[in-house]
Amino acid sequence: VTGYDRNPLELALGLERGALDVAASDLATAVADADVVILATPVLAMRDILAELAPVLKPGALVSDVASTKSAVTSWAREFGVNFVGGHPMAGSERSGMVAARLNLLRGALYMLTGDSPLLEGLVRGIGARPMFISPEAHDTAVAAISHVPFLTSTALVKATMHDPRWAEWAPIAATGYRDVTRLASGDPAMYRDICLTNAGAIAPLLRELAAELGRVAADLEDRAALEELFQDARTRREDWLQRQESFRLP
Amino acid sequence: VTGYDRNPLELALGLERGALDVAASDLATAVADADVVILATPVLAMRDILAELAPVLKPGALVSDVASTKSAVTSWAREFGVNFVGGHPMAGSERSGMVAARLNLLRGALYMLTGDSPLLEGLVRGIGARPMFISPEAHDTAVAAISHVPFLTSTALVKATMHDPRWAEWAPIAATGYRDVTRLASGDPAMYRDICLTNAGAIAPLLRELAAELGRVAADLEDRAALEELFQDARTRREDWLQRQESFRLP
Repeated sequence: VTGYDRNPLELALGLERGALDVAASDLATAVADADVVILATPVLAMRDILAELAPVLKPGALVSDVASTKSAVTSWAREFGVNFVGGHPMAGSERSGMVAARLNLLRGALYMLTGDSPLLEGLVRGIGARPMFISPEAHDTAVAAISHVPFLTSTALVKATMHDPRWAEWAPIAATGYRDVTRLASGDPAMYRDICLTNAGAIAPLLRELAAELGRVAADLEDRAALEELFQDARTRREDWLQRQESFRLP
Repeated sequence: VTGYDRNPLELALGLERGALDVAASDLATAVADADVVILATPVLAMRDILAELAPVLKPGALVSDVASTKSAVTSWAREFGVNFVGGHPMAGSERSGMVAARLNLLRGALYMLTGDSPLLEGLVRGIGARPMFISPEAHDTAVAAISHVPFLTSTALVKATMHDPRWAEWAPIAATGYRDVTRLASGDPAMYRDICLTNAGAIAPLLRELAAELGRVAADLEDRAALEELFQDARTRREDWLQRQESFRLP
């Protein structure tokens, strides 16, 4: 396993923790002998990287990635003639870099793949993840709903509360509920910026629907029956999803 | 410690787990000899309970509660001449009932009190919580921001995604991020219904501000600089809050 990163500290930590066998000094050297290349950068950085990789890859080398949107990167790979199958492991945290790495991070997690590659599928199964095949377009709509809109919701809630002049009084009182609903707002700004820029079409309508729903709730705050139905329905649906989701996981 | 609950199963479990010394068969018996009475029901149930308690309390007995809004219950206690100091422990989970009880649940947690009572303050310190004195009105605005609006945000996100016709395709992909942002939506519907009904005035403007913010984000999804500033600011403010909040906690 050969690694390359712009930041030499990440490489040093990767070597020390045993994630890498070799740290390369530049991108071309890193991929020279590779059968599989996995890119992990903000999405918009990948266009230049794919252009740089195309002429130096070994013939037949497969390129994949772990970014959160798949349509844009798939079209760039096609543009530069790179043999590409997009990937998206559905695990991780709001932390980034080698310091956030955990050996079993992907164990039991879903790993979306935008194409068929026995080599890549074997790698995914080898780290204990569960491959799932999906088109780049279906992927991007799904993650808009279950990942990008939740991030933007967390972020908007932070903005709406922490910019309030009364925040200084509220801050010591905020507890685990506030912490969890806002957790995603601590995610990497550059990563999410690129996610939004490459997936605005799927995110915008869902975000507008959520804003409209919040407006309806604000209007219904004194309607006992409407509140009860909304809260009961949300709880039932979420608990049902949680239970099914747990049945997908490895023990 | 004497307990009373409408549901005899809760009482049986309370005895079995050692949370209660005695299970009373009705409310009047439960409070007959009590120096301190702690009410834990949805807020709107408390008016009738305070009316029922008023004539049967021991002279000088103190009544407190653990509900999430304080203005309404404080005015009812005044109406019925009950010696009342409101309480609100800032801990817990989306689960309810004796099965969700944990011995150290309140250890290190903030415990808001709406009045001065050495007896109650001693009890709060005795279970390892940190008392904080606040007026019912300031309390209700603060918890609207850091608890009620986050709950409604979680719930609205569940509604906006799980009612979408494509939810069946999205459900298996939703992972820890979605789970955490929607965690509060699994909270007790009756409890939150009463919270909204007794705190609509504080919740509504904050909810409208959040809806407006989401609308602004939807309009800015292709504005690189605006996204970057929003995400960087939210991350910095949240990390700063987390760090300060941790410094409040007991080790």
